[in-house]
Amino acid sequence: SMNLLSKVNWENIRDLKYPELRQLAEEIREYIIRVVSETGGHLGSNLGAVELTISLLRNFNPLRDKIIWDTSHQAYTYKILTDRKERFVTLRQFGGISGFSSRKESPFDHYGAGHAGTALSVALGFAKARDLSGEDYNVIAVIGDASLTCGLSFEALNNLGYYPSKLIIVLNDNEYSISKNVGALTNHLRRLRSTPLLLRMEHKVKDLISAFPILGNMLQSAAKAIEHGLDYLTASKEPIFFDIFGLSYIGPVDGHDIPLLDEIFKLAKELPGPVIIHLQTVKGKGCEDAERHPERMHGISPRTAISRSFMTSETLKKVPVEEKVNKAPKYTDVFADALVEVASSDPDIVAITAAMPSGTGLKKFADKFPERFFDVGIAEEHAVLFAAGLAASGKKPVVAIYSTFLQRAYDMIIHDVALQELPILFAIDRGGIVGDDGPTHHGIFDLAYLRSVPNLKIYAPKDENELRHMLFTALRHLKGPVAIRYPRGRGVGVPLEPLREIDMNSWELLENGEEVAILAVGRMVSYSRDALKILREKGIYPTLVNARSVKPLDKKTLKEIADRHSFIVTVEDNILDGGFGSAVLEALNDMKARGEIASLPSVLRLGWEGFIPHGDIEILLNFYGLDSHGIAERIANWLRDTGTSLKHSLPEGAPSKVRS
Amino acid sequence: SMNLLSKVNWENIRDLKYPELRQLAEEIREYIIRVVSETGGHLGSNLGAVELTISLLRNFNPLRDKIIWDTSHQAYTYKILTDRKERFVTLRQFGGISGFSSRKESPFDHYGAGHAGTALSVALGFAKARDLSGEDYNVIAVIGDASLTCGLSFEALNNLGYYPSKLIIVLNDNEYSISKNVGALTNHLRRLRSTPLLLRMEHKVKDLISAFPILGNMLQSAAKAIEHGLDYLTASKEPIFFDIFGLSYIGPVDGHDIPLLDEIFKLAKELPGPVIIHLQTVKGKGCEDAERHPERMHGISPRTAISRSFMTSETLKKVPVEEKVNKAPKYTDVFADALVEVASSDPDIVAITAAMPSGTGLKKFADKFPERFFDVGIAEEHAVLFAAGLAASGKKPVVAIYSTFLQRAYDMIIHDVALQELPILFAIDRGGIVGDDGPTHHGIFDLAYLRSVPNLKIYAPKDENELRHMLFTALRHLKGPVAIRYPRGRGVGVPLEPLREIDMNSWELLENGEEVAILAVGRMVSYSRDALKILREKGIYPTLVNARSVKPLDKKTLKEIADRHSFIVTVEDNILDGGFGSAVLEALNDMKARGEIASLPSVLRLGWEGFIPHGDIEILLNFYGLDSHGIAERIANWLRDTGTSLKHSLPEGAPSKVRS
Repeated sequence: SMNLLSKVNWENIRDLKYPELRQLAEEIREYIIRVVSETGGHLGSNLGAVELTISLLRNFNPLRDKIIWDTSHQAYTYKILTDRKERFVTLRQFGGISGFSSRKESPFDHYGAGHAGTALSVALGFAKARDLSGEDYNVIAVIGDASLTCGLSFEALNNLGYYPSKLIIVLNDNEYSISKNVGALTNHLRRLRSTPLLLRMEHKVKDLISAFPILGNMLQSAAKAIEHGLDYLTASKEPIFFDIFGLSYIGPVDGHDIPLLDEIFKLAKELPGPVIIHLQTVKGKGCEDAERHPERMHGISPRTAISRSFMTSETLKKVPVEEKVNKAPKYTDVFADALVEVASSDPDIVAITAAMPSGTGLKKFADKFPERFFDVGIAEEHAVLFAAGLAASGKKPVVAIYSTFLQRAYDMIIHDVALQELPILFAIDRGGIVGDDGPTHHGIFDLAYLRSVPNLKIYAPKDENELRHMLFTALRHLKGPVAIRYPRGRGVGVPLEPLREIDMNSWELLENGEEVAILAVGRMVSYSRDALKILREKGIYPTLVNARSVKPLDKKTLKEIADRHSFIVTVEDNILDGGFGSAVLEALNDMKARGEIASLPSVLRLGWEGFIPHGDIEILLNFYGLDSHGIAERIANWLRDTGTSLKHSLPEGAPSKVRS
Repeated sequence: SMNLLSKVNWENIRDLKYPELRQLAEEIREYIIRVVSETGGHLGSNLGAVELTISLLRNFNPLRDKIIWDTSHQAYTYKILTDRKERFVTLRQFGGISGFSSRKESPFDHYGAGHAGTALSVALGFAKARDLSGEDYNVIAVIGDASLTCGLSFEALNNLGYYPSKLIIVLNDNEYSISKNVGALTNHLRRLRSTPLLLRMEHKVKDLISAFPILGNMLQSAAKAIEHGLDYLTASKEPIFFDIFGLSYIGPVDGHDIPLLDEIFKLAKELPGPVIIHLQTVKGKGCEDAERHPERMHGISPRTAISRSFMTSETLKKVPVEEKVNKAPKYTDVFADALVEVASSDPDIVAITAAMPSGTGLKKFADKFPERFFDVGIAEEHAVLFAAGLAASGKKPVVAIYSTFLQRAYDMIIHDVALQELPILFAIDRGGIVGDDGPTHHGIFDLAYLRSVPNLKIYAPKDENELRHMLFTALRHLKGPVAIRYPRGRGVGVPLEPLREIDMNSWELLENGEEVAILAVGRMVSYSRDALKILREKGIYPTLVNARSVKPLDKKTLKEIADRHSFIVTVEDNILDGGFGSAVLEALNDMKARGEIASLPSVLRLGWEGFIPHGDIEILLNFYGLDSHGIAERIANWLRDTGTSLKHSLPEGAPSKVRS
């Protein structure tokens, strides 16, 4: 069913007739659904952007003109119709094409993204560069309504209104971020969507009626509906947010009506100044199930059956779903359940998410304690400051933000939370690599960027059960800022015990071996434990420590380890520069400088170096030597290369002593 | 002339008559000018906020109600009238009171700040906490017009409009950030300022005429002026930005008219929902010179004569000015001059500031190349993304932002600049401690937070001459992101040579000594050089290295140093956790692990630990042992404590070999 699609690309798409374009849109939807059901990926946003992408490519030159996709999770149709039609089947696979725009992937991707809200600022940069160079290409920013909740977008609009430049902003309004969009501006957009077509621009529009027949007819009806003339058609009494910034406004427009879109993009090209085109689209368009479940069908796991018709709970059962080898609960869910449990007996606990009620698991908290739950939109900076205000007033805010997005609030963590020693718990989900989403989403910087912040404590549980106890313990004794960092995906499958206090600041000795000690953080504990089995077969019997407190380090245990081992291996799911291993080096060096240890052990630091591409988590860990085999092999090689012959006093298989 | 002020504080200020309040305001101005001329500090903003603070304290209880000052550089009157009247003379002195609000300093400071744009989010947190706890105190956020250029403020308004809560926002609009304020919203505020008094609120206002006589009269005139009734007084056809967020609006109001302010704050207390009060104030009010030179008189250096009458260039000469012991040019000026010079022959260079054209020195660039200069407002995130767009289009953006404010753009540095390897030069001014402004402004985290970012290079010049050559060299070869970090204040007084290329990636061996090597970064090089003289008197002859490339480290030189020295000292004006010394430990450890060096030198890391209070830079360096005496003493003590007897082959005063 790719009769048309197999022949069409951006160069010949202008030649197609509208009935053919409808067929093309259908084939693209079919293709996207087929690939995403196999590879996983963003479904709803891409199904909603098919027609607008087709029309953009009919009206602009994607090599010469710069189409900047905000977040860029909705650019699948663009990828397919530019130079990645065949390669699209490798979507999000290790070595395959990215789920986001990427400058390295294609000359058609003029900018890369992954985090929301960057496109307006970047597009303004492109536009200014064009103006300075005396060129005349078009710059088009395609943004979602949720991106407008980012303060960043406001900063860009404020700047655009001050340094006006020709820029076409396509507001793809589907009323959703991942979840239902929030914020006052969202309400404003909702009101705009309910008006007839409006043009607000400082140009005579009467001519439109002849030059743009569809648009002209709509305007005539609109003008009648709101009893307004067509001279300067600035209809509606409603103040429009975008007026403040000197933007011309065209909207609301059905974002699935290609003939209308064609006229509008043509008009936008003719306008001399910046314009925003407010498109109303349907998230999941053309896939009934995705339309009815926009949140559930936002992101799809690999090997998920997708039905285009609506699934009742009855029919749903009959559809084969993702094979789940690992039946352990997800860290996210364990966190969410434990938080609800703790919050049930502590009314001071409040929870904040930045547009991720499902992703962070806080939806459960919201259902139970709606008045203590806040979704602030894609506004991580505000989320942390809002929490600071709550904490300064005696509340115990739990701020649940993915590691990669918390980067946005770095200044607030230093300037507000840590400096003022406010009791806030950061629940940092997606710490470490996240897999298919790739380098824009891997949470591999947090241990480094948080470690340099004074007064902040950082913990990482070795498994989902420990996460429960950490959360419980931290919230019980919350005096200052605490971060608990845990990975994406499922736990290791340990039983979940009743909540209890644990001594989080002490490391946990899991295996008492000799000569070499492995200090592992978070999810790396279980990979290291498996590595131990492999190492034993090679006659190496390391000690294994669950280094659950990254800051403060457990210096007492570290000293004992250093006294008894010549070799220390640190294993972290984090960037090596400035990470956990670096903290261990600092501590050992300072102990040595103070004469607290007699000699410095040799240290091997295992973790990430540089940006890591997208791909399945297990594949990435394997490829970069951070799965159990990689860890074992690198330790064995290192010991061999240092020329050390380890004493092997423990016979293979002998029970090792385990403390705690 | 403190007859009234000596008797008045927040508890009895309500008892004063208006003529007395005028006298009080005069005495407060006199006091602020007297103290600031001695200690240095923020002048214009504080002189503009005297009356509004007086009226706030007459209408609210500063212990029970929460007055949150944005940035909090304008809170001197508040400090004086709450519990710090006598201590105010210690303003910004080491051990004295802070130039900003500080929770540790006083129970009247409910929140601390220093960076702009945080108050709305924080105040919303306070308000929500109050609502959840069933309390009824007032929460008042006092923000400047410049803070509204922060995306943060928008995020807060967007959230406030969605989770409405009673909150009083006082918009202290003086048309300035430090420089003239910029942005589309600024233009909008300007239009609002030119209208008659407006009330936009969903409440009948007819009653106001009897209950609030001054306000009532103004409204009646306003209603006549714009031919509007007084039923629901939502006058003016102009859409108001704040409408979108469901805020009631009162403005423009003369922010120096205490009787009027009293009525307005009374009214605001009675409104059930959030309200914004748009005050028009004069920056520098009551000090003619400050009124005429709002930018120059924004921040005052210690020991500066301040005249209340206008200084012509003629009279200015007669006023004794700050004693300048160090006549060397400021790093900022050296940077600015060099940039203009380089940009003269490279039309691709563009420059971006976030509301700091003077502070960063870019004003010179703006005067010379107005079309290549961009002031984006207090919007560091946007600044970096805007630069990314420019860079992706072939420009060479120089982004000049203070170290502490660049923390706001951390995510953009990772996600946009570094990941996409865009050629952007970050000119990081105020790296290291900045002195009187204190912990909110010390730029002591950048080496740590930037070091973990892949693809980013980090340099720090040892003096102002090297800064010139670094800038020149970096801009010549700009392929990816580069950061050059330099301190606040004056250089070391070396001659400024013609611009030339230098081998920035190589460290510079300044003194070739023995046994112990000092690796110093940036301004610490000259302190270390002076420390050398002291150490020589103790018979210690260290090697001294200008470690000008913090990333990448010059591993070749480091290896040579490690081969020839048993002791290495790293000296940095940065936090120790994850900083330069940590990078050296990582490199040495990895060299040892790979067998590239035979043994690990002992390393002493000197730098900052934790937040550092405000105070004169020299006093802080001395107190924390980072001036030349401190460095020398700590090195000598460390060597003594390790029990090492150094071989002293070089006689005291013998010329040491200097390479390069």
